[in-house]
Amino acid sequence: MSPQLALDLSGPAALPLTKRLVGSIVREIQRGALAPGAELPSSRELSRSLGVHRNTVLAAYRELIAQGYLETVKARGTFVSRKIPASEASPGPSCVAPLAIELPPLALGPVGRVHPEELPLLGGLPDLRQFPAAELHRAYRAALRSAHELFDYGDAQGHIRLRKELAAHLRNQRGVAAHESRLLVTRGSQQALFLAARALIGKRGVIAVEQAGYPAAWDAFRVAGAELVPIPIDKGGLVVSALARLAKRRKLAAVYTTPHHQYPTTVTLSGPRRLELLELAARERFVIVEDDYDHEFHFEGNPVFPLAQKDEHGVVLHVGTLSKVFAPGLRVGYAHGPRELIERMTALRAVVDRQGDAALEVALSSLMEEGEFGAHVRRMFRAYTARRKVFFECLERELGDVVEYEPARGGLAVWARVAPRVDVQRWALRARERKVIFQVGSQFFFDRAGGDHHARFGYARLNEAEIEAAFRVLRLSLPKSRGSSSCHEAGVDRSARGARKGIAKKVDL
Amino acid sequence: MSPQLALDLSGPAALPLTKRLVGSIVREIQRGALAPGAELPSSRELSRSLGVHRNTVLAAYRELIAQGYLETVKARGTFVSRKIPASEASPGPSCVAPLAIELPPLALGPVGRVHPEELPLLGGLPDLRQFPAAELHRAYRAALRSAHELFDYGDAQGHIRLRKELAAHLRNQRGVAAHESRLLVTRGSQQALFLAARALIGKRGVIAVEQAGYPAAWDAFRVAGAELVPIPIDKGGLVVSALARLAKRRKLAAVYTTPHHQYPTTVTLSGPRRLELLELAARERFVIVEDDYDHEFHFEGNPVFPLAQKDEHGVVLHVGTLSKVFAPGLRVGYAHGPRELIERMTALRAVVDRQGDAALEVALSSLMEEGEFGAHVRRMFRAYTARRKVFFECLERELGDVVEYEPARGGLAVWARVAPRVDVQRWALRARERKVIFQVGSQFFFDRAGGDHHARFGYARLNEAEIEAAFRVLRLSLPKSRGSSSCHEAGVDRSARGARKGIAKKVDL
Repeated sequence: MSPQLALDLSGPAALPLTKRLVGSIVREIQRGALAPGAELPSSRELSRSLGVHRNTVLAAYRELIAQGYLETVKARGTFVSRKIPASEASPGPSCVAPLAIELPPLALGPVGRVHPEELPLLGGLPDLRQFPAAELHRAYRAALRSAHELFDYGDAQGHIRLRKELAAHLRNQRGVAAHESRLLVTRGSQQALFLAARALIGKRGVIAVEQAGYPAAWDAFRVAGAELVPIPIDKGGLVVSALARLAKRRKLAAVYTTPHHQYPTTVTLSGPRRLELLELAARERFVIVEDDYDHEFHFEGNPVFPLAQKDEHGVVLHVGTLSKVFAPGLRVGYAHGPRELIERMTALRAVVDRQGDAALEVALSSLMEEGEFGAHVRRMFRAYTARRKVFFECLERELGDVVEYEPARGGLAVWARVAPRVDVQRWALRARERKVIFQVGSQFFFDRAGGDHHARFGYARLNEAEIEAAFRVLRLSLPKSRGSSSCHEAGVDRSARGARKGIAKKVDL
Repeated sequence: MSPQLALDLSGPAALPLTKRLVGSIVREIQRGALAPGAELPSSRELSRSLGVHRNTVLAAYRELIAQGYLETVKARGTFVSRKIPASEASPGPSCVAPLAIELPPLALGPVGRVHPEELPLLGGLPDLRQFPAAELHRAYRAALRSAHELFDYGDAQGHIRLRKELAAHLRNQRGVAAHESRLLVTRGSQQALFLAARALIGKRGVIAVEQAGYPAAWDAFRVAGAELVPIPIDKGGLVVSALARLAKRRKLAAVYTTPHHQYPTTVTLSGPRRLELLELAARERFVIVEDDYDHEFHFEGNPVFPLAQKDEHGVVLHVGTLSKVFAPGLRVGYAHGPRELIERMTALRAVVDRQGDAALEVALSSLMEEGEFGAHVRRMFRAYTARRKVFFECLERELGDVVEYEPARGGLAVWARVAPRVDVQRWALRARERKVIFQVGSQFFFDRAGGDHHARFGYARLNEAEIEAAFRVLRLSLPKSRGSSSCHEAGVDRSARGARKGIAKKVDL
């Protein structure tokens, strides 16, 4: 497209038109509308659009070239000189309006971007090196063959093929009496949580949440307008009796829970509490938002069916995601639940972003239809089983004197109590300097008021050698304290990068 | 993955285990958790997971096969019989919780799904037959080569490459002093509007909107919590003096406007009102949300620069979309504006759906870098120019005695006054029966209180022959009234489909 210039030729009548044109182009360069390297219109085009003689434009261009603002490239045209320093991210004018101060401070999710050189000991990040990019690409290409349909306005509830596959998955793997008509495909579970809260609370309402819990969910609920009340966690999972006491005092719209592998503790909600919770929700008429984010990765004992499997009273909204199986960047999650709730969430979804990526949804449904999804889950299950073994060995060997934990029966992480002599926050910072990342317990508490002596370590993203390396760095990064000596740090390659390459010395502890 | 069954073997102790197992499987089939065709676990797996003898499972399976619930497929396994009628979208239990009654009724957008056989005379739908699917596919494949990065958690503000391209586009084509640091990539302009409102109003606030206007935007603002106040439109666009009067009485958070080709009237906001509006916003400290949804398609006169081009006071949030150029299903839009506002919108975006599709964003930035975007705009501009000519000819020839309008200088539609003798609503229904779709004026008014004698016709999606056919159907569909005779309807193939194939007779009017 030929570039468009917004030129203001007004000025003192005494000033020749050429000078005014020169001045207006310089102003455009100064305010950043014409960036270094930007092409200018041809003199013919500009003279026509401004209604001035072409010679005026040619004279102005010559003058600007002489002043160094413009340069010509033979047979290509006239450009803003690349020698002009780019107006480095000109801040632009400040926003004239006061921004909404009623918005709550956002905690944002605990999982930020991880640098490729870092070793994240984080549970929620699948290993993308195993991501079946070739298969997805093939399926995407096949989907694009029906591009006319897929790139049009489509079904806000999600493409019917993907909804059918996901419903079958919930029936076959989780025992849920699922049906595609009661399933909404969302942009990751994050969108499902936001929509659920917005549909349930209207303009205000109370949502009970687990603490320790998942701050990104809290953000979604708060932005939807909810007041949050934390409910404690113990070895049996959510303390349902505390929830029952709250429900007597306050009208609850919902409780948010992660009963399979509680986030962040990975504790499984006990059988009696499951029944108690379902009964309480039916009696007090609130919805259980059940986030079953990594259902597939349960390693010991029989599978534990979700609360949704036993939902006879329309109390459970079951939320899941493909982020943990495939990749977080796919942004495909889902919610399954009572029809009226799904309908309302679908209507809201159409308002906030209309619809998902139909082409991607069709490509993913092909992968599920062809069994590639199941095969990938099995591959990852095998890989994670092996990593889990090494992970617990390392945890015991390197940190056995510093942390206590109960090996969870599932999930991709462990929640550990750290010896009081260790400053967990400082430990995490020292590890991060050495490019190993783990999560401090306090980030899973409201206002960080709690979890000071806890840490969360995950193993999903690292292979066995990387897990070994990361734990050596963790050991090395322990802050000095009464109980430890400083000799650990002498003569050892400190960087995880080095360890990753296998050039770190073995550290005897 | 081997299927998981949620079986409840409890029951009278006197009942043999086999009977209880049979009963529990039948219950799973009845409640829809086991669908026709679903695979059952092997007898070995099930006996192990239930902790019962394998012979018990074998006996139960034999009994269920005899009763017709199950069937075996040789060398494949045991399945729920396909002869069982699928529990047709079992409604499931009703939602236990009262759904938020404070939610406003949703208008939803005027553009629904269009059936392939229909001829939509709608302005907002680009012709997807011209969609460069092959180019997008090639770019997507190239993007997937760096899948590890792109499918990870990424930048909620949008991939930096696409932000740079879009900022350059705004500089080169719209004269805006744009910078990638002040640009947010969104899921279509719809998400940008929702995020803007949520960032600007906090929990409550007033947004002024154009009327006639864009109901999908109203929905986004209402779901964000805004109170809406309509401002009228005349031949000069938004009546800024009315907005000024409102601003004296109420504190405004924002005004939503479509100054380039006003939606739905396609009127361009006059020069003096532009200056007046910018000045008013700076004085009263509210934000102008400028939706420049089809900037590229301006056919007569010089380009009109957006309000953002003149924004010296941080009052304009400029919103755009690739939906109108490429395809609505791509779901890629953007917002550019004051830094603090973009930062706040980005933080909110991370909460409601985390991030966009990085692979798609990279693929689109490739298309822009390579000039394919510009080439596509030029192709579509040429195509629409030709269609526009036929469109206005048809409008004059077929409906010249029924509608009045001013040919807009841009946009892909026309807003027409319809003769009072014609019932527009009835006309639209009769046309729809014949598979031609146009929009009645009232749908662009609050509570449909207005626009009774207006209609909106667009031409973007139809080629010249289809436009001709659609207008013949419009003529035929005119409800009988004093001014028309019924002879139009005699002996003419009524379906647009027929007309599309060129087999309809020429209708003499």
